Amino acid sequence: MAKQANFYPVILAGGRGTRFWPLSRKRRAKQLLPLDGKRTMIQQTVARLLPLAPAGRLWVITNDDLRDAIAKQLPRLNRRQILAEPVGRNTAPAIGLGAFLLLRTDPTAVIGLFPSDHVIRDEQRYRETITRAIEIAEAAENIVVLGIRPSRPETGYGYIEAGSLFEGEALRVRRFTEKPNAQRASEFLAAGNYFWNSGMFLWSARTLAGALQEHLPKTAALLEEIAAAFGSKKFESTFRKLYPKCENISVDYAVLEPRSSKGEESSNIFCLPADFGWNDLGSWTALHEHQIVKQTWSDENVLMGDGTFTLDASGNYVHAPGKFVAAVGVRDLVIVETDDALLVTTRERAQDVGKIVKYLDEKKLSKLT
Amino acid sequence: MAKQANFYPVILAGGRGTRFWPLSRKRRAKQLLPLDGKRTMIQQTVARLLPLAPAGRLWVITNDDLRDAIAKQLPRLNRRQILAEPVGRNTAPAIGLGAFLLLRTDPTAVIGLFPSDHVIRDEQRYRETITRAIEIAEAAENIVVLGIRPSRPETGYGYIEAGSLFEGEALRVRRFTEKPNAQRASEFLAAGNYFWNSGMFLWSARTLAGALQEHLPKTAALLEEIAAAFGSKKFESTFRKLYPKCENISVDYAVLEPRSSKGEESSNIFCLPADFGWNDLGSWTALHEHQIVKQTWSDENVLMGDGTFTLDASGNYVHAPGKFVAAVGVRDLVIVETDDALLVTTRERAQDVGKIVKYLDEKKLSKLT
Repeated sequence: MAKQANFYPVILAGGRGTRFWPLSRKRRAKQLLPLDGKRTMIQQTVARLLPLAPAGRLWVITNDDLRDAIAKQLPRLNRRQILAEPVGRNTAPAIGLGAFLLLRTDPTAVIGLFPSDHVIRDEQRYRETITRAIEIAEAAENIVVLGIRPSRPETGYGYIEAGSLFEGEALRVRRFTEKPNAQRASEFLAAGNYFWNSGMFLWSARTLAGALQEHLPKTAALLEEIAAAFGSKKFESTFRKLYPKCENISVDYAVLEPRSSKGEESSNIFCLPADFGWNDLGSWTALHEHQIVKQTWSDENVLMGDGTFTLDASGNYVHAPGKFVAAVGVRDLVIVETDDALLVTTRERAQDVGKIVKYLDEKKLSKLT
Repeated sequence: MAKQANFYPVILAGGRGTRFWPLSRKRRAKQLLPLDGKRTMIQQTVARLLPLAPAGRLWVITNDDLRDAIAKQLPRLNRRQILAEPVGRNTAPAIGLGAFLLLRTDPTAVIGLFPSDHVIRDEQRYRETITRAIEIAEAAENIVVLGIRPSRPETGYGYIEAGSLFEGEALRVRRFTEKPNAQRASEFLAAGNYFWNSGMFLWSARTLAGALQEHLPKTAALLEEIAAAFGSKKFESTFRKLYPKCENISVDYAVLEPRSSKGEESSNIFCLPADFGWNDLGSWTALHEHQIVKQTWSDENVLMGDGTFTLDASGNYVHAPGKFVAAVGVRDLVIVETDDALLVTTRERAQDVGKIVKYLDEKKLSKLT
């Protein structure tokens, strides 16, 4: 895969990933964990993008808690290009800052926005899809979102309603929808023209900057001022002073929904179906299901330990590195242990793990969060 | 409770207790674990007997793997009175040796045989029962067994069939039975004159020695020779040389069954009903049930950790010292972790934990056993 001359991946790595507690912590968020293989999620994200863009063109946006750890995990990246938001301000300011920064050095820049904690099974196809997305995104005003063809009536994702064919496989976007309830999700699945919103977007820096100037003019002005200070001694202080004043809003709300309300013919938003084995690993259960398919485990037991014994046990996920794991007469459990904590739950209830972190936050048990 | 002048408790502490894996190991057997409280099972056993007999009259019979650890846990005991069998030879030679040893210094000695790994809820009543048993056992030829009134059709214990009343609460023993099947166990429970064999026996050293001379003459002669060497330099070598030649047989088979076949009127075996909250803690499940009753736990969760969080969780036993334990949406699980192992099973299947140890033995994973 050839490198794409003007392509700049921006990796969003500010999330906490509480549903992977007790492994995930404030300073060891999901993207910093080697959940699937030896490399961490963010290392995998970078590695699969490097054939498309050299390390010097990769940007990461994270927070103070994670910046040092990320820099350590990504030694090839220029530390200046790992930006730590002084406060979380959702995706619109984060990627807007990326746009204004890039415009100063490369007015033709095409930005690809990538979450840092997803897995991709077919990396070759992933890069082919992105290459195609870059071509579309190069044209002024175009916005490309990678859409995942739904395989189940998932209520945890936003959906993209696609309209007419644009060119090649790309479809015009009719509408972005909120997370649906179960009935709506089933309707979406049956309809055939709905896609999961992958969170992966591509557009030129110029288009993105323009969209922010149109929809969030005050925030755009602040971001331009921060970008102007980049590389100078006062960058950090400017960033810390101005960024908190930006609106706390997602790019979906700020730009995509108002833009798509112009109607599918004039919105210039396109959905490129992405069929490369995507999984956002939203919970221990999702990780378990990803690993069952990928590796050879018997009875759907994924037992991460030093030696195992099973008897009448199936469908269990156990994470206990360095320990001999013995499972007898148990089904569909999720057990995760760390030096200081032990999680005991089920595949069905793993989505509630975030509630444990909420409790720990409330009780100010910060050593555990 | 006054000390009983000629009472010598002999504590059997050679068992391995594999059903408490991964906590129990060859060199850290069940009786050496603080399963219920801060003191270990054998420390509790000794502590509850000390009001009846001074430390100098307590004997422990164990094996080479455990002797040092036991001596360390019981600093008040004379190390010479902690005997390590060179090889396991079941209960008949073990307590027979005790009898021949004691006869040499106190011909009036009454021996009480006690397992080292049971719990007793009402210690005052326990000592009252033993005091009464000593009175009966002092008469020549008398054998007293403490019988537990069954509370369920347990198939894991041997039963004592009681006959006519002897005196006070004591009953004549009609028969000892093997572990029954479920139907027989139900019949025993319904009949009302069956008791669980607690493994606690009392008899005079003279009676016991005589019984062995009658039923196991060769073994009795070997034991007499070993006992004669006690206190001399050649004791250890004599013990190691002769003890392996003893018959490998339980006192039940060797003495009690042949004796009881004489008929209840002439056998001189008596069952003293023991109603002092006995539990042999045969598995993690038994421990769990013991602790639910004893302590104040919500939703029958017994969570041994450093802090806990539960959500829709009930009936779980989790042993994870030093760790924050979070249980979400799980019922009736048994989870036990140590530095090198993690057990995941259920209350219902905890009886199969011994199978894990069998597997580890077969695979020669001796670090884990």
